[in-house]
Amino acid sequence: MAAPSPVSPLAPKHTPSLPTVAGVRFAAFAAGIRYKVRSDLMVAVLEPGTTVGGVLTRSLTASAPVLKCRENLKGGSGRVLVVNAGNANTFTGRQGAADAEATCITAAKVFGCAPSEVFVSSTGTIGVPLPVDKILDALPAMKDGLAADAWMQATRAIMTTDTFPKLATRTAQIDGVSVTINGFCKGSGMIAPDMGTMLAYVFTDAALPAAVVQTLIAAGADKSFNCMTVDSDTSTSDTLLMFATGKAKHAAIGSANDAKLSDFRDALDSLLIELAQLTAKDGEGATKFIEIKVTGAEHNAAAKRIALSIANSPLVKTAVAGEDANWGRIVMAVGKAGERADRDKLQIAFGGVIITRDGGPVPGYDETPVVAHMKGQEIRIDVDVGIGTGEATVWSCDLTHGYIDINGSYRT
Amino acid sequence: MAAPSPVSPLAPKHTPSLPTVAGVRFAAFAAGIRYKVRSDLMVAVLEPGTTVGGVLTRSLTASAPVLKCRENLKGGSGRVLVVNAGNANTFTGRQGAADAEATCITAAKVFGCAPSEVFVSSTGTIGVPLPVDKILDALPAMKDGLAADAWMQATRAIMTTDTFPKLATRTAQIDGVSVTINGFCKGSGMIAPDMGTMLAYVFTDAALPAAVVQTLIAAGADKSFNCMTVDSDTSTSDTLLMFATGKAKHAAIGSANDAKLSDFRDALDSLLIELAQLTAKDGEGATKFIEIKVTGAEHNAAAKRIALSIANSPLVKTAVAGEDANWGRIVMAVGKAGERADRDKLQIAFGGVIITRDGGPVPGYDETPVVAHMKGQEIRIDVDVGIGTGEATVWSCDLTHGYIDINGSYRT
Repeated sequence: MAAPSPVSPLAPKHTPSLPTVAGVRFAAFAAGIRYKVRSDLMVAVLEPGTTVGGVLTRSLTASAPVLKCRENLKGGSGRVLVVNAGNANTFTGRQGAADAEATCITAAKVFGCAPSEVFVSSTGTIGVPLPVDKILDALPAMKDGLAADAWMQATRAIMTTDTFPKLATRTAQIDGVSVTINGFCKGSGMIAPDMGTMLAYVFTDAALPAAVVQTLIAAGADKSFNCMTVDSDTSTSDTLLMFATGKAKHAAIGSANDAKLSDFRDALDSLLIELAQLTAKDGEGATKFIEIKVTGAEHNAAAKRIALSIANSPLVKTAVAGEDANWGRIVMAVGKAGERADRDKLQIAFGGVIITRDGGPVPGYDETPVVAHMKGQEIRIDVDVGIGTGEATVWSCDLTHGYIDINGSYRT
Repeated sequence: MAAPSPVSPLAPKHTPSLPTVAGVRFAAFAAGIRYKVRSDLMVAVLEPGTTVGGVLTRSLTASAPVLKCRENLKGGSGRVLVVNAGNANTFTGRQGAADAEATCITAAKVFGCAPSEVFVSSTGTIGVPLPVDKILDALPAMKDGLAADAWMQATRAIMTTDTFPKLATRTAQIDGVSVTINGFCKGSGMIAPDMGTMLAYVFTDAALPAAVVQTLIAAGADKSFNCMTVDSDTSTSDTLLMFATGKAKHAAIGSANDAKLSDFRDALDSLLIELAQLTAKDGEGATKFIEIKVTGAEHNAAAKRIALSIANSPLVKTAVAGEDANWGRIVMAVGKAGERADRDKLQIAFGGVIITRDGGPVPGYDETPVVAHMKGQEIRIDVDVGIGTGEATVWSCDLTHGYIDINGSYRT
């Protein structure tokens, strides 16, 4: 394995300190699954009455834990979350499924719930049998170490090639009652939409029926993780779960469309977008964060396809790494997206400076602010394709030597 | 612009010397379009009676020359081909279209044909106005320099980031008469199917109606250039044209299904595959050629989608660069292709050694030959997805620091 990477230059200056969420406690443990000198196992324990919803990878070679989560989400009740780093328990055959099942059964016994209320995730190397005994043996000891304020420890325990922990917090009002939404995630490569990315967990003390949690988290994923790409590769383990403990004393919520949820929905979406952006900023080898906004497309889905075509283009991503406002490659990426675009109306701006208009470069545009913008860490690309009113915004990062270093030597 | 790259380590040891094709002559010229010390303009002149067919990029932001070729292909008669390197005449607005038109008109006058019988291609930087006068001024001088044996000069004049010239030749029998098929191409980045790639030209002395040429070249492209990918990016200029001068004295051919064409079709397909493989071997920064064969898919199109998902995965390509038989990333790429696959039947082999079977790694497989294979220059990956009988083979190359070097500094 490669030497630990230095922290991404795009890491935030400050990592937020998360408040507690009533009904949620964590423990982290160095189980020696793959890493030797750090925690690699995390447990979250939720009090009775906690509802859960989630979005899982659409990969057709999904991991055993993903299949188990899909099964247990049907019950809508979440009491325990067990996540390990270092081993993905993916493509591990029937043994892999048995290992996920064994984790659920043991965790249920240790923490006092039904196996169907236990959710499991594994992240790391594919195809290596999970050393499940290390997990099962650790759970009783972890029960004694549960703490309501161990957000950072939990986040660090699930990191793999991440160079910094990714946490976010919001407060929202439901019917005049303040509730908290905390979230954290891991992931820096093998990241692309459908579904979004990596492992991400959200916890709130709001009291929401499982169906409402499911609707809110699915809608939020479409506006956040599904708008973010590092390398166009879709993980076999992508998992986003939201747990609602119901400890907050607000009025009952019947549906996700309830007007009382308006502020909560905005706060949740904003939190998910922050986590998705943090993930792009920790893209393997990333030195520049890229925000791409496409307008004027036939419809919103077309705009998103065009935006992702740009965001996933190796030629665009290497140009940004080279601080080159290479709008010709944007034209190429728009053209290959397969969505309607009017070449003679296409407008492209870097850092807010319009460089092309009416099918060609803007004569004599001022390159100075563009050059300065490209030297920065946050690159903004705006594209109007001149057809309709569809729009979308996606986030990505540049493609650098660091990506090759990390991924050309991961297993060796 | 980056310093000239050294020759790809995957370049063939010997470049073939192409025989003449009756009715075809070439001239190359240093027009100073972008490069200063080399030829960057090529003309092919075809004798009267030459038919033409072709396949052009499906990009919706196609270049002006592509649109002009699409228009002139309708006539089916090809008398002149004018290709410049260094400037793509793409996204150059109405002036770009006028420049392509002016080239056709002037070439028609100089070489004595109709403007609709002139085909034009431009390759290089996008969005810079074509210095068309340099081309128009050069054409009369080039007329005096036409030669039937200038295949290498013609090929070299259209290279951009290519590190070696790509030429191939075949002979075939039509009804007992021997005919020649020669081809050459350029391209090493912004290469992916639909349609295949780069600029490629094929010349034969066979006597074929334009409709037959069109059918043969389109079918051949699907088996060759459309099975090859370097970086998943589709060029705005991709062009494949075949000219048939009709100088060979074989029996008349009425349709592309004529049994007399069987040997010709095989030879043409083989030539196109050789050119496509040469292009993958000159992939920007490539150090390893990758052949991926997918079997057991639901149908052939599904197999091709799965194969291209593997071939385009940055994680697979960086693993190959790192000489790592990382089959976990193959599992991931199969899963994200969106085609049916049976995780518990999936079989993956590197260099002919089966590493996974029945949903997991083969216990105790011999790593030694796999390690040796990964150190070689030609990597073979076989995947059986265990569903049906669909199969496909595609070609690609690894993703290295060289790709980043070339594309992070192309314009600067």
